[in-house]
Amino acid sequence: MLQRCFEALRPARPMVHCITNSVTINDCANVLLAAGARPIMADDPEESAEITAACRALVLNLGMLSPRKLEAMVKSGHQANRMGIPVVLDPVGAGASTLRTRAAYTLLEEVRFAAVRGNGSEIRVLAAGGENHGGVDAAPGECAPEQERAMAEALARRIHAVVAVTGETDLVTDGARAARCLGGCAEMGLVTGTGCMLSALTGALLAASPEQPFAAVCTAVCAMKTAGELARAALAPDEGSGSYRVRLIDAVNRLDGPTLAARAQWEEL
Amino acid sequence: MLQRCFEALRPARPMVHCITNSVTINDCANVLLAAGARPIMADDPEESAEITAACRALVLNLGMLSPRKLEAMVKSGHQANRMGIPVVLDPVGAGASTLRTRAAYTLLEEVRFAAVRGNGSEIRVLAAGGENHGGVDAAPGECAPEQERAMAEALARRIHAVVAVTGETDLVTDGARAARCLGGCAEMGLVTGTGCMLSALTGALLAASPEQPFAAVCTAVCAMKTAGELARAALAPDEGSGSYRVRLIDAVNRLDGPTLAARAQWEEL
Amino acid sequence: MLQRCFEALRPARPMVHCITNSVTINDCANVLLAAGARPIMADDPEESAEITAACRALVLNLGMLSPRKLEAMVKSGHQANRMGIPVVLDPVGAGASTLRTRAAYTLLEEVRFAAVRGNGSEIRVLAAGGENHGGVDAAPGECAPEQERAMAEALARRIHAVVAVTGETDLVTDGARAARCLGGCAEMGLVTGTGCMLSALTGALLAASPEQPFAAVCTAVCAMKTAGELARAALAPDEGSGSYRVRLIDAVNRLDGPTLAARAQWEEL
Repeated sequence: MLQRCFEALRPARPMVHCITNSVTINDCANVLLAAGARPIMADDPEESAEITAACRALVLNLGMLSPRKLEAMVKSGHQANRMGIPVVLDPVGAGASTLRTRAAYTLLEEVRFAAVRGNGSEIRVLAAGGENHGGVDAAPGECAPEQERAMAEALARRIHAVVAVTGETDLVTDGARAARCLGGCAEMGLVTGTGCMLSALTGALLAASPEQPFAAVCTAVCAMKTAGELARAALAPDEGSGSYRVRLIDAVNRLDGPTLAARAQWEEL
Repeated sequence: MLQRCFEALRPARPMVHCITNSVTINDCANVLLAAGARPIMADDPEESAEITAACRALVLNLGMLSPRKLEAMVKSGHQANRMGIPVVLDPVGAGASTLRTRAAYTLLEEVRFAAVRGNGSEIRVLAAGGENHGGVDAAPGECAPEQERAMAEALARRIHAVVAVTGETDLVTDGARAARCLGGCAEMGLVTGTGCMLSALTGALLAASPEQPFAAVCTAVCAMKTAGELARAALAPDEGSGSYRVRLIDAVNRLDGPTLAARAQWEEL
Repeated sequence: MLQRCFEALRPARPMVHCITNSVTINDCANVLLAAGARPIMADDPEESAEITAACRALVLNLGMLSPRKLEAMVKSGHQANRMGIPVVLDPVGAGASTLRTRAAYTLLEEVRFAAVRGNGSEIRVLAAGGENHGGVDAAPGECAPEQERAMAEALARRIHAVVAVTGETDLVTDGARAARCLGGCAEMGLVTGTGCMLSALTGALLAASPEQPFAAVCTAVCAMKTAGELARAALAPDEGSGSYRVRLIDAVNRLDGPTLAARAQWEEL
């Protein structure tokens, strides 16, 4: 499943529209190119929907949000829904500010997502928003893996999307099926943007296999963890997190289906 | 010609003002420093003209455009024209949205450019704009090399600027003379921003040789293709597009006049 | 002193809020992660104070300023002052435009800073602003080292902050004590953002040792110069400024207290 999904990406060369933050926007563009997709970035409401119209996936990332950028996200989200192309939400910082939490809830109401990818705390904020009809003070604390899975499954069923909760272990669920992906390495936490890059990659894989969203998201998650391990293996003894970032893009660029299938540590639950 | 123009850059250390997009803004600054110029970035209309006033070239890049940034571009363009310093237009995405296409036409009307650098499709949109007085639906499809050359020459004559159409082969013309530059390599297409970097470099070379715009643009185009080849030669077998981006900046930083003169594959037509 | 301050950083893992420019924002985030801090970037006035509230230091960088970003800076500065966490000002381009010069003066009036870090020309603009009550045309020219020290000391006493004037030689003073740091290398000037990265690092070190601001700023300045030298030593003969940037982050990531104490070339004056 991973191999087939991954191998569908390069021949498709999908154009992926990202509305994202300036911290990691260059990395998102470069990881998309490395994987064989074509990135296009545009975040002004005067043009965003028109740009989406030429693309095969849309990725909305809440990092460094502004009200004007949120307006562009809603317009592009509507356009993507009209066209039926997949939309990915990366709720960066949901729970960290009222602006971002409310934006996440607004987007979940206004736009149909194919996938949502965040860390445990961000996904908990999204899940809580449904239960108490939009309160922003609801972010619960850490929870046990089985609770996290129940919460992700409930969110997935409620918004009819694949939900990926990523961290040391990644969980992917569409509400009916669930999978876990192990692996990766600590170095990934020393580089900004590995989460943003994964969300961009998720958009590309969904664009290439829109009819298999669960498989596409599992493939993105496993590809990123595998690339993280390959980057670590390529690191020279005197190198650090600067080189690791470069080698991570290298690893995505050089990854192929058989390597992914052989190395990914994942299991359906 | 290439060698003399290239060797004029480092001693001049020109300050180059870029109004550009956040995807590749760091690469533009670093490529300018690598080549011996001094970058300054400022894109708010409250300060842009004042920043331009301290510089020796201005580069306007339409990636991730917003109405506010366009206002800054017009103000800086007017300031640059008053001072007589060269202005470069990189019409990123002209034809991809109404905002960008209209912005390109507005800038061509408001500002006298020394050079315009874009891919074939972007240059076709600019050329078409002149023929039908500003319609945005005019972007014609692909065309044969001889048509492309005629179109670029007509645009160059109309706006009194050097036009560079870059891609696998690069064409440079001022309407009277024309040159072609071959070389480069496929890896350049796997890194975002090689076009933006070339436009920034064009600004730097024009700043150092403002009286020879055709030669300066040819030099920029040939320097970038040569750097692309040198970066590829420096790539280790297990490296990919992440390392290639780093080695491309290295190659610009290490390039000298004799190497450029010896390796550039160009011919006047 | 340097070793103790530096070794306090990694265990503290402080969250550092940066309001900064898009040219070097990725480098600032990555240098903070490399040093063991946790970056968060947010620059919209609708959320900036709320983000600051979760952090242990705030870094305000005037590069690519806009009026809206300035509003966010003032709000976050007030929040940081209410909480008593350290605030760093990097007056990028003070003196280069009226917007930036006025913004620097506004921030000095509205916000209590723990430290200000800039090059000689930027610090001169700040120092002059106090003497003539806010005129923006006051930026004096180059001055001799002893004059620069007197000026930095006067500024430090006036605003009750540690002032760092960085360049070939770095000067740090709190108005009572002063230190000089030598070292570094010319390659640092070929990479954009080494100043911005140093300001971010200063915020992290202040967050970890808020009760010792003079020592924390000296540590930041010496750490950056030492990392610059280690990066140069790691550079292969065929590499250039692109690789240097990567190795600079590597060097910050790998730096430890004993190495810093052994290599830093500094002296109290």
